[in-house]
Amino acid sequence: MAGEEDERLQTLLAEIRTVVEEELYPLESRFLQEGFGVLLPILAEKRAEIKARGLWAPHLPPEYGGLGLTLYEFAQVSEVLGRSPLGHYLFNCQAPDIGNSELLLSHGTEAQRDRYLMPLARGEIRSCFAMTEPEHAGSNPVWLSCTARHEGEDYLISGHKWFTSSADGAAFAIVMAVTTPDASAPHKRASQIIVPTDTPGFRIERNISIMGDVGEDYVSHAEVYFEECRVPRANLLGHEGEGFALAQERLGPGRIHHCMRWIGICERAFDLMCRRAATRELSPGTLLASKQVVQHWIAESRAEINASRLMVLEAARKMDSEGSYAARVEISIIKFFVANVLHRVLDRAIQVHGALGITDDTPLSFWYRHERGARIYDGPDEVHKSVVARHILKGYGVDISL
Amino acid sequence: MAGEEDERLQTLLAEIRTVVEEELYPLESRFLQEGFGVLLPILAEKRAEIKARGLWAPHLPPEYGGLGLTLYEFAQVSEVLGRSPLGHYLFNCQAPDIGNSELLLSHGTEAQRDRYLMPLARGEIRSCFAMTEPEHAGSNPVWLSCTARHEGEDYLISGHKWFTSSADGAAFAIVMAVTTPDASAPHKRASQIIVPTDTPGFRIERNISIMGDVGEDYVSHAEVYFEECRVPRANLLGHEGEGFALAQERLGPGRIHHCMRWIGICERAFDLMCRRAATRELSPGTLLASKQVVQHWIAESRAEINASRLMVLEAARKMDSEGSYAARVEISIIKFFVANVLHRVLDRAIQVHGALGITDDTPLSFWYRHERGARIYDGPDEVHKSVVARHILKGYGVDISL
Amino acid sequence: MAGEEDERLQTLLAEIRTVVEEELYPLESRFLQEGFGVLLPILAEKRAEIKARGLWAPHLPPEYGGLGLTLYEFAQVSEVLGRSPLGHYLFNCQAPDIGNSELLLSHGTEAQRDRYLMPLARGEIRSCFAMTEPEHAGSNPVWLSCTARHEGEDYLISGHKWFTSSADGAAFAIVMAVTTPDASAPHKRASQIIVPTDTPGFRIERNISIMGDVGEDYVSHAEVYFEECRVPRANLLGHEGEGFALAQERLGPGRIHHCMRWIGICERAFDLMCRRAATRELSPGTLLASKQVVQHWIAESRAEINASRLMVLEAARKMDSEGSYAARVEISIIKFFVANVLHRVLDRAIQVHGALGITDDTPLSFWYRHERGARIYDGPDEVHKSVVARHILKGYGVDISL
Amino acid sequence: MAGEEDERLQTLLAEIRTVVEEELYPLESRFLQEGFGVLLPILAEKRAEIKARGLWAPHLPPEYGGLGLTLYEFAQVSEVLGRSPLGHYLFNCQAPDIGNSELLLSHGTEAQRDRYLMPLARGEIRSCFAMTEPEHAGSNPVWLSCTARHEGEDYLISGHKWFTSSADGAAFAIVMAVTTPDASAPHKRASQIIVPTDTPGFRIERNISIMGDVGEDYVSHAEVYFEECRVPRANLLGHEGEGFALAQERLGPGRIHHCMRWIGICERAFDLMCRRAATRELSPGTLLASKQVVQHWIAESRAEINASRLMVLEAARKMDSEGSYAARVEISIIKFFVANVLHRVLDRAIQVHGALGITDDTPLSFWYRHERGARIYDGPDEVHKSVVARHILKGYGVDISL
Repeated sequence: MAGEEDERLQTLLAEIRTVVEEELYPLESRFLQEGFGVLLPILAEKRAEIKARGLWAPHLPPEYGGLGLTLYEFAQVSEVLGRSPLGHYLFNCQAPDIGNSELLLSHGTEAQRDRYLMPLARGEIRSCFAMTEPEHAGSNPVWLSCTARHEGEDYLISGHKWFTSSADGAAFAIVMAVTTPDASAPHKRASQIIVPTDTPGFRIERNISIMGDVGEDYVSHAEVYFEECRVPRANLLGHEGEGFALAQERLGPGRIHHCMRWIGICERAFDLMCRRAATRELSPGTLLASKQVVQHWIAESRAEINASRLMVLEAARKMDSEGSYAARVEISIIKFFVANVLHRVLDRAIQVHGALGITDDTPLSFWYRHERGARIYDGPDEVHKSVVARHILKGYGVDISL
Repeated sequence: MAGEEDERLQTLLAEIRTVVEEELYPLESRFLQEGFGVLLPILAEKRAEIKARGLWAPHLPPEYGGLGLTLYEFAQVSEVLGRSPLGHYLFNCQAPDIGNSELLLSHGTEAQRDRYLMPLARGEIRSCFAMTEPEHAGSNPVWLSCTARHEGEDYLISGHKWFTSSADGAAFAIVMAVTTPDASAPHKRASQIIVPTDTPGFRIERNISIMGDVGEDYVSHAEVYFEECRVPRANLLGHEGEGFALAQERLGPGRIHHCMRWIGICERAFDLMCRRAATRELSPGTLLASKQVVQHWIAESRAEINASRLMVLEAARKMDSEGSYAARVEISIIKFFVANVLHRVLDRAIQVHGALGITDDTPLSFWYRHERGARIYDGPDEVHKSVVARHILKGYGVDISL
Repeated sequence: MAGEEDERLQTLLAEIRTVVEEELYPLESRFLQEGFGVLLPILAEKRAEIKARGLWAPHLPPEYGGLGLTLYEFAQVSEVLGRSPLGHYLFNCQAPDIGNSELLLSHGTEAQRDRYLMPLARGEIRSCFAMTEPEHAGSNPVWLSCTARHEGEDYLISGHKWFTSSADGAAFAIVMAVTTPDASAPHKRASQIIVPTDTPGFRIERNISIMGDVGEDYVSHAEVYFEECRVPRANLLGHEGEGFALAQERLGPGRIHHCMRWIGICERAFDLMCRRAATRELSPGTLLASKQVVQHWIAESRAEINASRLMVLEAARKMDSEGSYAARVEISIIKFFVANVLHRVLDRAIQVHGALGITDDTPLSFWYRHERGARIYDGPDEVHKSVVARHILKGYGVDISL
Repeated sequence: MAGEEDERLQTLLAEIRTVVEEELYPLESRFLQEGFGVLLPILAEKRAEIKARGLWAPHLPPEYGGLGLTLYEFAQVSEVLGRSPLGHYLFNCQAPDIGNSELLLSHGTEAQRDRYLMPLARGEIRSCFAMTEPEHAGSNPVWLSCTARHEGEDYLISGHKWFTSSADGAAFAIVMAVTTPDASAPHKRASQIIVPTDTPGFRIERNISIMGDVGEDYVSHAEVYFEECRVPRANLLGHEGEGFALAQERLGPGRIHHCMRWIGICERAFDLMCRRAATRELSPGTLLASKQVVQHWIAESRAEINASRLMVLEAARKMDSEGSYAARVEISIIKFFVANVLHRVLDRAIQVHGALGITDDTPLSFWYRHERGARIYDGPDEVHKSVVARHILKGYGVDISL
């Protein structure tokens, strides 16, 4: 990156970091103790300020009101935002909306972009992505039961989904449904279709209680039924049979976003850990920091976080320059590597905090619980490791099945 | 153990296991989704049945209505009960009441036993133990700020405690307070005093939100203030300055109970993991069990659980025959060893369950969250490891400070 | 075990331990620096003394000059002997002779026992076991190329073996060779046949250089060719097609022996580690033992060694009372569990020794190198883990292939 | 780096890699089985060719016959050379000569450079560095007993050193000796002095047997006595009392060299592991590569090696631009991080090779043995971790002692 561009990015990052620390950290205690809902009004105000300050939607092109950052640049923004559980939402670049925006941007028709992307970009509505089904292993994304069959100019969609994140309060869902069950290749059977949530037959069964939290509104994960949901065929995203390809396309940058968000969490947890070690006395005058084991956790965490950031940024650069497909092995590598670093750093930070670490008086417990999923969602560690190995072993003339 | 005794124990264990599986497993879903409070009426009924069937309070002597088991025997009961989060409560051998009972049994005056132990043994009241203070490291139990000063025939107790488990709804607390601040040895300064919770000045500030749960009633951990709480000096347990010694005495068997309860959790998690592996398809006809990594998690978990049980039972035997002090190194070894086995087994079981593993549709998430504390409460891993090393290194002529 | 028997065992163990410490430790330096060969004369003398003191061949029945110990008892002897690399040899219970003795004892004809077992039991000759072939994975023991075809009253044996331990100087080999290639079940194709090493066509290609050591005599691992080796059919052990079954039978107790030997190594390494920590200064007056990380290694090692011993002794007891087959899962569990404990304990002991740890001035380096094989020989970790999982998953109605 | 420079580097790396693969790999078997000495003549020839091809001494400035690479560039050369145990020697950039060259280059007088650096740069002589003493912990480099006292224009040096690598056959040693024992700061007491090895009183006690190898010539580590060794004071490097500072300066780039060499070893081991997995059959038609556990080892190794390289190159860049002192935390981070990656990658590669992995038929065993030291030499993991933590905790206002 040229010096000037880099300077601009550093200035932006510093500004965003100030916002996160000064505006969001003070809200965290209420978020952790009372939930997301009570914060909606104040967050709405703050989102307006972000927009007014020209920091809104860093991932979106200027014509959609965003900053037009490259993936490499946005990745670094994502890290800073990740330091607070509320960061991405504040800047309107939260999953799953960010992924849906990207899909609509690349594959939406003009009508779809007008109707769905514009209000999403402005932060007026939220959306969700309905892919995973409780009956089938999420690690095998081509195995789906949800169907969308043609009826006249419409699709009739029937299916059962869960982990449809943020469905509660969403204006529309993008659903993966089998449209061409007879396609020979399993990954060519499904399509992505936009379903407004006020469509009759779209039913949220429950917000799933996850690691002790039912959640609400944006911070929730729903179980959803599609019961003969009728939507016009114009709601198809891309072409029929492209559902899996679009999902893959969506997941590439999505994993970069997640990984950098996790690194933001790591940095915050690391900071809390060091702070605690530097202030907590074990006995009068003896700091926790004097313990060699704590020192080593600090050093090991530093090493692992540094390694993670270098690898993720390198993957982002490759994606910017060569595209998602070229970077898919790097993506799989960071997906499992960083998820495990996150797990270990949080675990150490909690241990250093002792009893305080398991309370909700710090955000550590929230992340410890909710990011246990990091080793599972968007492909469990085990799948990504086998993907990496398969690619490498091809270079040795062997084609392993997954 | 002679053959006949062992047979009697096996019969008892089988009976208890049936109760746990048939009576408690079906209640877990409501417990996980709705909390402990809604179950109180049905648990009250079931507790009455347990009493009627002669299974009540296995740890207490017959004269207090219990089964009079040795520690070695009760340990095995504790494992079976540990398979459900509701097990120990059902049989009235739940912490912290069990530890308080043991204290009262060994050190209570007749009046104290009549007033506090009898209703506790009958399950009519609950109790709590107020030791840890937020201002001081729990890993250094001799560093306390809470004081109990003499005023006439009374103590006036002032202090701030937290992690006073189950204070919500408890009839009395046993509090650790400094009575002789000038004692030369730090571990001779505190005493244990019984404080009825309706004493003016006893105030529950809050049930601490822990890993996402505020909890309620028995399943809760309170922050408590003692504000010039006045109790008669007859409420002293044992002698002044013995507080720390009694706490140690209390913790010895307590750690055996915990370790065996954890093994029960491990066995349940192991069973859930195997069941999932044996039934979940990754693609039509391909079971999760066919994955070598899952197989290895099963084998490693089996090995670690077996190792844990053998070590805990050996420590229990030693405690029965030689006492708490003689077994203190073994106790420290199992405390950190089993807590870490528990952590790994739960982690693997969750990973095998995929998305389901992080929901509250199984008890795995509950344990994953609430037993993160196992590596912290009753002495963090780090303290127990140093205790073990100190003892061993003494044999090499070196006296390390902790 | 009854009190009296146990007392007798404890006395025996103490006596053997004294021998190991007083007679063998002083020889180790020469062994490590100059090799095994130079020690042969002095070891011969010491072996005679052992025999004279009535400690000889603890695993063999009295009629063969041994102590007639049960497996459970011998396991404990094996631990003590394992403290020195020369221990088992001194007492004539070294692998592979011990396994060969057991085979001859259970399955040898009278003639075979007279000719091969008797001198082995007396320590006059040594033997070897030729099973593993370089061309086939040792983890799949039923896949062999070595054949023994009938010619009149003889077998003509052709094959290529390696890791034929102690072939250098052995009087005979027991070889696994395919005798019935058409047997439907792969594990019924091979047989075990005794081949005197002076048989024409038996050729030691080399002592394989392993982890830097070519070795010599007993301490060596050969690559061997059988080139149309002719031996009488009377040299068959058991029946044709039983080779694999006998090998399994041989490996059961063999794994107990190994595991207990490894625990002996662990105890020695643990002792060296503690001694070093207790005496090595990092700066004037500051002992290595004062480092928390070293303390934790000591505690973790203690925990893991204790766990190992309890599990191995329990497996030995089960084998004594229920036989090899009943204990096969326990055997697989200890095989991988203890091999990994050994690996970690040695690694920590070396790290505590610093530069000294990687020299051959202590036995740590020898074990670190030569016991890297412990996770490979007699079945690699991966195979044993899958064996355990397969057995467990059968209980859940699933039959996984290995 | 500008595109053209980078292209030049890539061409150089490709050329060197070809040399390593075509010229050195074929020599490894003899090296592993017969030792270094027998290869000296052929290596001498090949060194001459390297010089003739203009690839000689990539780390040295052109005026000393080298390629004048930056540290960032040389690091990448070091990785390629590290793929063979003979790589660095062939190109005359082997430790400890490379460190000694750098010292002489920066701090040598003209006379010293003429007499010692010139022949070293030409590869006519070798040298050694005598710092570590058996009586003192190497992790505390300021604690030395070796002294150099003034006598007229000379130093009289007395001391006992070990791990004086490559002393066997070296023309001179640089020795760390206390010259100003009364300096208040312990790290200002020692100086570095050049001692030709033919100086009376310089005595090699032995080549230490390390992990089974006594070694010889360049591949050896000596125990050395300085017995009233007299050298002129003109042999002082830099100034009196600067010994420790120079040692630190020497170690900074040295650790980069080591780390990149280790990454080269990792890449070679990784390649061997993949090759083995891709060709070894477990049963007819079933490749080792089909095993999920092996696949995961491959993926995890790939991730860890990538992370290592990115961190080391970033540290090298920082050192090139900001100097050793500015990069010292990064250096400590890579020192322990990469040493542990190396350890794990080698361990996995060996396990994948099974029995073959522990033989000396591949270089894996050599590295497994000799690079066990990587977690110890140039500062054990434990010291580097505490160094990192100390630096970080300073930012939190705490000054921990090491």
